[in-house]
Amino acid sequence: MNYPMIRYILSHTLRLEAALMLLPCIFSVIFHESEGLYYIATAAICLMVSVALSSSKPKNFEVYNKDGFVAVALCWLAISALGAVPFVMTKEIPNYINALFEIVSGFTTTGASILFNVEGLSHTSLFWRSFSHWIGGMGVLVFLLILMPVKTGSRMNLMKAESPGPSVSKFVPRVRENARILYQIYLVLTVCELILLLITRMNWFDALCISVGTAGTGGFGVLNSSCGDYTAVQQWIITVFMIAFGINFSFYYLILCKKVKVAVKMQEVRGYLLIIFSAIVLLVWNNRGLFPGLGENVRAAAFQVGSIITTTGFSTVDFNQWPELSKMILLVLMLIGACAGSTGGGMKVSRIILMLKSVRKEVQSIAHPRSVKKIKMDGQVVEDEVLRTLNVFIITYLIIFGISLLIISFDEFTLETNFSAVAATLNNIGPGLGLVGPTSNYIFFSPISKIVLIFDMLAGRLELFPMLLLMLPSTWKTK
Amino acid sequence: MNYPMIRYILSHTLRLEAALMLLPCIFSVIFHESEGLYYIATAAICLMVSVALSSSKPKNFEVYNKDGFVAVALCWLAISALGAVPFVMTKEIPNYINALFEIVSGFTTTGASILFNVEGLSHTSLFWRSFSHWIGGMGVLVFLLILMPVKTGSRMNLMKAESPGPSVSKFVPRVRENARILYQIYLVLTVCELILLLITRMNWFDALCISVGTAGTGGFGVLNSSCGDYTAVQQWIITVFMIAFGINFSFYYLILCKKVKVAVKMQEVRGYLLIIFSAIVLLVWNNRGLFPGLGENVRAAAFQVGSIITTTGFSTVDFNQWPELSKMILLVLMLIGACAGSTGGGMKVSRIILMLKSVRKEVQSIAHPRSVKKIKMDGQVVEDEVLRTLNVFIITYLIIFGISLLIISFDEFTLETNFSAVAATLNNIGPGLGLVGPTSNYIFFSPISKIVLIFDMLAGRLELFPMLLLMLPSTWKTK
Repeated sequence: MNYPMIRYILSHTLRLEAALMLLPCIFSVIFHESEGLYYIATAAICLMVSVALSSSKPKNFEVYNKDGFVAVALCWLAISALGAVPFVMTKEIPNYINALFEIVSGFTTTGASILFNVEGLSHTSLFWRSFSHWIGGMGVLVFLLILMPVKTGSRMNLMKAESPGPSVSKFVPRVRENARILYQIYLVLTVCELILLLITRMNWFDALCISVGTAGTGGFGVLNSSCGDYTAVQQWIITVFMIAFGINFSFYYLILCKKVKVAVKMQEVRGYLLIIFSAIVLLVWNNRGLFPGLGENVRAAAFQVGSIITTTGFSTVDFNQWPELSKMILLVLMLIGACAGSTGGGMKVSRIILMLKSVRKEVQSIAHPRSVKKIKMDGQVVEDEVLRTLNVFIITYLIIFGISLLIISFDEFTLETNFSAVAATLNNIGPGLGLVGPTSNYIFFSPISKIVLIFDMLAGRLELFPMLLLMLPSTWKTK
Repeated sequence: MNYPMIRYILSHTLRLEAALMLLPCIFSVIFHESEGLYYIATAAICLMVSVALSSSKPKNFEVYNKDGFVAVALCWLAISALGAVPFVMTKEIPNYINALFEIVSGFTTTGASILFNVEGLSHTSLFWRSFSHWIGGMGVLVFLLILMPVKTGSRMNLMKAESPGPSVSKFVPRVRENARILYQIYLVLTVCELILLLITRMNWFDALCISVGTAGTGGFGVLNSSCGDYTAVQQWIITVFMIAFGINFSFYYLILCKKVKVAVKMQEVRGYLLIIFSAIVLLVWNNRGLFPGLGENVRAAAFQVGSIITTTGFSTVDFNQWPELSKMILLVLMLIGACAGSTGGGMKVSRIILMLKSVRKEVQSIAHPRSVKKIKMDGQVVEDEVLRTLNVFIITYLIIFGISLLIISFDEFTLETNFSAVAATLNNIGPGLGLVGPTSNYIFFSPISKIVLIFDMLAGRLELFPMLLLMLPSTWKTK
């Protein structure tokens, strides 16, 4: 491994975090809070560690495949470990494991919380919490790629390890250029939501936090009621933007390039919207009678579906109280997740489509053993290697799911709680069902379970393999 | 498709069923029951249908791959449809869907019941119920293969479609010979258990039903308490034989061939026994305090673990009352299942081992992209095609699981009930948790849910693809 280069990337990442940590301080000034001082202190620590790491410049700027995975995993661990420090310093979350859980939940855009009284936090910390979604949503390293001097092939290796979903290849030729475009789309959409929410007279601080939270498909709110107290129009705006941020960013890119026809035909986006529509219809039908009118029913269903499938995790109602079928539909949406190449988590719609296609092909190949049809997606043949990686991904997912489930079962909570807690963290959703439902949270778990869930959040965000690679002894062997 | 040949196989299968249906009549004579008459009547119906189907002899005795799958699926549907008739005629299960559920549960060796008062059944029907496990355990068609004139390659295609697990290849060269050996091992083991149970002074009728039930890894008992009222020694005997019938039959075959060293080194058998041992230790630790003494604790843990991992489904205690971790361990065992090439169901231990190996290989290949290590099992390289089929199997399994879960959720039972009902039927276990736990049963589900669960039992027993092939329109297209 190219250790000097990994140190160099780590050093740059921490320098970026130090810079980003100064943003919450603006709110300390505006709201006359003292918490900003602790953020400055932590930023200083980040900077010191960064300087220590960059003592020697690497001779070789090449990032190999494995280096990319290890670097990304280490960077995420480092920014989380330091990102949690201000919460402990301000005594808002005195326990370090809880603070780490909260910030990992932020960076991974999960939105699972160990806090009961969110409104008790300072504005400074509230903003840092929500802003961590925005940073983690598109990826810290994707941002660094725009700035850092690494070789083109190396950029690719870093981006591959951090981007959600299996579709990076579309952006291959000019990685830096594409990272820039992705961030521009991301920023423009966020600002659009912010402006719309401000027009509907939402408090500016709420609007800002909700916008960055929606953009990263995070889910930390600023009110104890999450989004339940906002007006109907505001809830609809959030719903639309949640769904928009769950769409593959290639879609927007194609539209920018005026290839609207190609964009509209993207199978993944169509599948994604179809699933959303079907789920809303089923929920509205099954929840009839729970709401005073059809309008409320549709709004609640649309909001919750948008929030869960994009793995955002905001809520307007306590869906834990919904009938069993409705809860099951939400659980299935949790597992499906958003589109690949969006900021959302989960298995990704494209993987589900490929799964269905490969089953159909298998059954057909029994019926017609001599046919050699290939699986196609958006008119293009899907390579065998892509299918193989998909399969291994799903198997790895199942194994991590099973082992996590078994370990957190030692806490003796119900199957519903355990199952949805693992699903909600591994898919970066946030709220689950039962004890981890939208009105309750993750504080009850033992420290060991919390560490398992922290691992799941990171593994889910980084698409499993970077975190597993860190745990493999042979990764650290030097020849 | 070779329709005449499929008709011919169907005809033979029904003739065999007619013959087997006369066995319960012996018990009508012994216990002076009138129910036997209905069994004779149903046997007559089977025979008439069989004759109608065999009106013309096929010209071509070839069974192609697809024909094998379709024939097996149709045979299983046919024997189930007719096997349920006596229950309706005797009015012991007046509703046909319930009767079908019960007999499919029997043939597929699931052991899920819709009956509350098993002891109210006639001895005739009790025997038919338990005997259906024995028939289904090793397979109707595997039995027919010993008798029927089909080409060697064709035998292979039939056996492939009916045998549990992916390891038929070991028996390739002489299919008829191997089918015979399999049935001999099966019969000898069953008789051993019967003799041991008789020595411990179990009622001979109970001993017979329990032995055939254990052999098929079924799970229908003859007492309302399942196996709870038998003595400690009897429970231990049943435990040992349940575990024995969950071992890959190649193991016994190798021992018969005096290749003990090779047998003992079989990775799947080792993994299987290791999982059983670990699960028992964990359960004994977690259930401490629930039992008056360590002996009872170990016995209950061993019995339940053996029953669940081999997907038998007998029970000595109501494990629904156990702590959550213990229930979770049982749920994981449900999903793992027994060895391939045994009469047990589930995912099969060999698949789990291959899954773990392919994840390890994937992570290693990120670390060392140039290494071209192959996955090995028992010292032999696993072909890529085997891995691909395994992957598609798992994906298909997940999709069937998800769709079934969604449909039965319409009944509005809890997640625990729904999840374990699908797991218990798709893996051919029998009792699940919650409402379908060992002391309650499946009667509460709606007819639609019952049909879904019937499909799951058949799909689980036939390893998914034969049943899916039946549902594919292109299967029935004639060119």
